[in-house]
Amino acid sequence: MRKLINDPDNFVDEVLDGILLAHPDELVTAPGEPRAIVRAGSPAGRVGIVTGGGSGHLPVFLGYVGIGLCSGVAVGNVFSSPSAEQILAATKASDGGKGVLYLFGNYGGDVMNFGLAADLAEFEGISTQTVLVHDDVLSAPAEKADTRRGVAGMVLAYKCAGAAAERGDSLPEVARIAVKAIASMRTAGVGLSPAILPAAGKPTFELPDGDMEIGIGIHGEPGSHRGPLESADEVADRMVNAIMDDLAPAEGSEVMVLVNGLGATPLEELYLLYRRAHQLLAERGSRIVRKYIGEYATSLEMAGASITVLVLDRELTELIDAPASSPFFRQ
Amino acid sequence: MRKLINDPDNFVDEVLDGILLAHPDELVTAPGEPRAIVRAGSPAGRVGIVTGGGSGHLPVFLGYVGIGLCSGVAVGNVFSSPSAEQILAATKASDGGKGVLYLFGNYGGDVMNFGLAADLAEFEGISTQTVLVHDDVLSAPAEKADTRRGVAGMVLAYKCAGAAAERGDSLPEVARIAVKAIASMRTAGVGLSPAILPAAGKPTFELPDGDMEIGIGIHGEPGSHRGPLESADEVADRMVNAIMDDLAPAEGSEVMVLVNGLGATPLEELYLLYRRAHQLLAERGSRIVRKYIGEYATSLEMAGASITVLVLDRELTELIDAPASSPFFRQ
Repeated sequence: MRKLINDPDNFVDEVLDGILLAHPDELVTAPGEPRAIVRAGSPAGRVGIVTGGGSGHLPVFLGYVGIGLCSGVAVGNVFSSPSAEQILAATKASDGGKGVLYLFGNYGGDVMNFGLAADLAEFEGISTQTVLVHDDVLSAPAEKADTRRGVAGMVLAYKCAGAAAERGDSLPEVARIAVKAIASMRTAGVGLSPAILPAAGKPTFELPDGDMEIGIGIHGEPGSHRGPLESADEVADRMVNAIMDDLAPAEGSEVMVLVNGLGATPLEELYLLYRRAHQLLAERGSRIVRKYIGEYATSLEMAGASITVLVLDRELTELIDAPASSPFFRQ
Repeated sequence: MRKLINDPDNFVDEVLDGILLAHPDELVTAPGEPRAIVRAGSPAGRVGIVTGGGSGHLPVFLGYVGIGLCSGVAVGNVFSSPSAEQILAATKASDGGKGVLYLFGNYGGDVMNFGLAADLAEFEGISTQTVLVHDDVLSAPAEKADTRRGVAGMVLAYKCAGAAAERGDSLPEVARIAVKAIASMRTAGVGLSPAILPAAGKPTFELPDGDMEIGIGIHGEPGSHRGPLESADEVADRMVNAIMDDLAPAEGSEVMVLVNGLGATPLEELYLLYRRAHQLLAERGSRIVRKYIGEYATSLEMAGASITVLVLDRELTELIDAPASSPFFRQ
């Protein structure tokens, strides 16, 4: 165990305490619910966007609460869904009278609890719409694309939907943008080591040193291929090919690429993956016009990375380029 | 080995290739020297700031070449100094007629090669001044403070000196600012696992799982204490106390805190350290008015973190708040 933690039972609450001490001008807790964090200031006049899920993925989810991004988040325990009550508290504090979009990854617990929260919100007179992020191309075949898991691509969905909400779009319009962004993206990942849960002190799964698992989920869900670790170029080939075969953008497409580190993988290695992705996408007739490279969605100290490709058009490019600001993300 | 790399002998050059492919509008190579990278655009009218050192620390060093930051960098092999020729190339491409500040960490190889480069630059008619970053409080006692190593605090030195250069300050003035910032800061770190060199495939030092080393250097240099891993609060206490006992700011001081991850430590854990630092500094009568929390200076996949405290006055606060922009750092 190589963790700088205190009592594991207090891990999430202490992390939140640290975040709120550090960023009191930007983030506040929702009334009466310490596990619901919302953007500082009034939500009036904007569609709210509430996200959430288990802890352990910073900057996801809390890191994307801010200007031009999400308006609130419900914070679960490590790798565990937040409760419907926590989601409801984030919803009420995010509602500015124009309704609230629920935008989160396609995981069973989250789907159930956001569903319950939507019912509770309706009792409170708050309209919600739900859009699931399901960008992990290797988690299910194309004919079951709507069962795929949500991974790092959710950051690009937040960016697009958040920019739409910020400029004053209506709830159906913000939801349409989120759906469009998600339909235009695919992600593929690779894991080289497991994450270790603070409370358990043990790996979430076994992956021998020197092996890799392509398509592994951010909680250690099974991938599509396990075998000896290959070179950065070979791994990038596997990921980019899986993405592009499924996404099949038109020749000459402009795309955005997100190369995301899962936690322990150095930034240097992410640039090796970017380098190969750049070459491969050019060979396939796509042009990278926007990119994020760094740790955007992690899995505690898991070694590994993911690549996301988002096909851009004028509308999505404008939303990606819009200003955004949170303690964890600025552009 | 859990590295996404190709041929280890090409590691640094391929990383640079990826960075230049990703950010061609912001970074370019100096004429004839692929290991010297400078900010895009003309250096005319500004004091240049050239830094450099071994690779494996991204965003340090290359990540701080940009607007309001450094103007050029010489890129060594992993954990190895760049050559005087590489430094000279960065110097020539960074010289806008007002001279060049050499601002880098206090390591033997770097001191030697930047010294040689300064002589070569003089032959070329370029004036240079050198300021060494030596913020690692645990690397030598107070009476030998100028022999201390340079670690994450160099990022704050870049920020202050870079802002001074950007607004048009003279070389002696930019050097004065750098010296002042460095004199006003201390850093203390902890390592929980070693980094692994790509070429060797082996740890740079042994640190048994479950042990920690307080004061460890970013290349694995010996620290001040090795023992069983303690809680996040206990570790933060050790680091903050070492910093504050040495720095001894006036009661009521306003300070900036940088909580830096060394590579594999999750952002969640950095916020636990921030939380405790916030409590301790308040107890000691200092007020945190600025903060950076994240991975600013790493050591490949080393698990661990450092804390830096910088005492602010009006001049340094203004320089910290000035706009800055590189592919790796924006504010």
